[in-house]
Amino acid sequence: MQTKILNFLKKTDEYVSGEEISNSLKISRQALWKHIESLREDGYDILAVPHLGYKLVSSPDRLFASEIKSGLGTKIIGKHIYYFDSLDSTMDTAMQLGIKSAHEGTIVLAEAQSKGRGRMGRDWVSPKYKGIYLSLILRPQIPPSQLPILTLLTAVSICEALESVCSLEAKIKWPNDIFINNKKLGGILTELNAEMDEVRFVVIGIGLNINNDKKSLLPGANSVLLEKGEAFDRIRILQQILKRIEENYLLLKSRGPDFIVKGWRQRNITLGRRVKISSHKEHIEGEAIDIDSDGALLLRKDSGITQRVTAGDVTHCR
Amino acid sequence: MQTKILNFLKKTDEYVSGEEISNSLKISRQALWKHIESLREDGYDILAVPHLGYKLVSSPDRLFASEIKSGLGTKIIGKHIYYFDSLDSTMDTAMQLGIKSAHEGTIVLAEAQSKGRGRMGRDWVSPKYKGIYLSLILRPQIPPSQLPILTLLTAVSICEALESVCSLEAKIKWPNDIFINNKKLGGILTELNAEMDEVRFVVIGIGLNINNDKKSLLPGANSVLLEKGEAFDRIRILQQILKRIEENYLLLKSRGPDFIVKGWRQRNITLGRRVKISSHKEHIEGEAIDIDSDGALLLRKDSGITQRVTAGDVTHCR
Repeated sequence: MQTKILNFLKKTDEYVSGEEISNSLKISRQALWKHIESLREDGYDILAVPHLGYKLVSSPDRLFASEIKSGLGTKIIGKHIYYFDSLDSTMDTAMQLGIKSAHEGTIVLAEAQSKGRGRMGRDWVSPKYKGIYLSLILRPQIPPSQLPILTLLTAVSICEALESVCSLEAKIKWPNDIFINNKKLGGILTELNAEMDEVRFVVIGIGLNINNDKKSLLPGANSVLLEKGEAFDRIRILQQILKRIEENYLLLKSRGPDFIVKGWRQRNITLGRRVKISSHKEHIEGEAIDIDSDGALLLRKDSGITQRVTAGDVTHCR
Repeated sequence: MQTKILNFLKKTDEYVSGEEISNSLKISRQALWKHIESLREDGYDILAVPHLGYKLVSSPDRLFASEIKSGLGTKIIGKHIYYFDSLDSTMDTAMQLGIKSAHEGTIVLAEAQSKGRGRMGRDWVSPKYKGIYLSLILRPQIPPSQLPILTLLTAVSICEALESVCSLEAKIKWPNDIFINNKKLGGILTELNAEMDEVRFVVIGIGLNINNDKKSLLPGANSVLLEKGEAFDRIRILQQILKRIEENYLLLKSRGPDFIVKGWRQRNITLGRRVKISSHKEHIEGEAIDIDSDGALLLRKDSGITQRVTAGDVTHCR
């Protein structure tokens, strides 16, 4: 109901009479007033003037499910949204929802995370109301070995969204870090729940620095605010990310992975460079020559041998 | 405390004085009485005779954590036990515990499951107090591709336990069904939670028909009761399974997988036979010639080509 009331108020810059809203939504004037009060508590600045009605002055800088859904227009991604003011980790909550049969496309959003996770068990710093911290549940019918394409797809989708909403040239460092001007803006973490050869569901975690000022960023990290000099509407960025993921995900199903790999190659800053790769198992060095259609990095070592690398940390050598 | 009281009573067939117990455990006679009452509510038949004391006449047929732990002697497997009278599925509960950082070796037991799962999304019928329905959390440091060895290990461990406790000759149908006299006694389901190339944890589900009479079994299924003509102590069987899994798991870490594959081959009823294999993807037929050290079945098709099969349903052809 509150979403419907907001949609009414957002249609115009003028006052809307309480009578018009309550008649149209078939609720009493008293019920309408209670909803308006509740919206105000959520941070919506709504003017109420006798004989004129209600007017929305400003919306809070919050990733409320109702705000995300309004005008989103997707069929799968973001149809079910769980929003939290704070969570330990959106990954854990999404994993639990996945086990409880949550729909494909369900997303878990938190304004802050106390135990945000990055790849390989690292922390992800998630200051409140500054970034986008999101986990997305997908149920692709592909074997676990083909899952890295979903990480590439997400990276490409995020770059496309940052390009179109913020006019930023976003790049990808293998496997899935988002860079702008050689400084890290975000990362992607893909976890899966599977029966041996059959994926039950995948949770794709996205962490992006949006309106972080310098002091809420780790040294060397970037944010949209830092890069553009102004704060951006996180809702618009998030909506565009969800739209791009949906479009690419549906295309992946119909067309196969080639367009994703191509989009990834275009935006990557790793290929053609000399890199060091560290994983739990080994440290190897060589020239990053290409990626496979399954997302593995092909590394030409000094011995001349080409090695496929599926996981690890990349250091770009000078 | 109740475990300690039980241990006191189990030491002897005679009466134990309340004074002796309460002094030794440093609790009041009144507190002792309350614990005895609570044990009786759990189904322990405990006699109380003035001036003589307490005597344990019988224990209930329940897989209480305290009973499982008593005399178990393992270091990892079963150190943490979650026991439920009934659950939707021990797999789901174990998955949720795994996400919440449950220790390696944690087990989830239920006397009944309303939505017990088998492989490939099938149901597993779990009548109350009849079988062993268990999920075990492991945190092995191996890539997802090497996980099938854990399923083989579990199958071998279960066979070893049934052999030693029930003197039953248990066999394995690829990949992980437990058979006795060509009738299915149980199954194993392995699910994983992983970050791309790195397993976070594995949940191994075990479902075994122990004291099922004919009417609590599906047609063609077997149970220990049916096979031996008498009910068996589920606790002893379960303890032995946990002990065997622990011993084999520790050996796997130090010695590698060969002894597991050998033990599996010795007990298998699939190799050397003509089989049909059905999976979501395909149906293939041929002779099952061997398994790999990673648990994949090698199938020689009529064309002469050998195909590796990692998942699917096997039908043994006549």
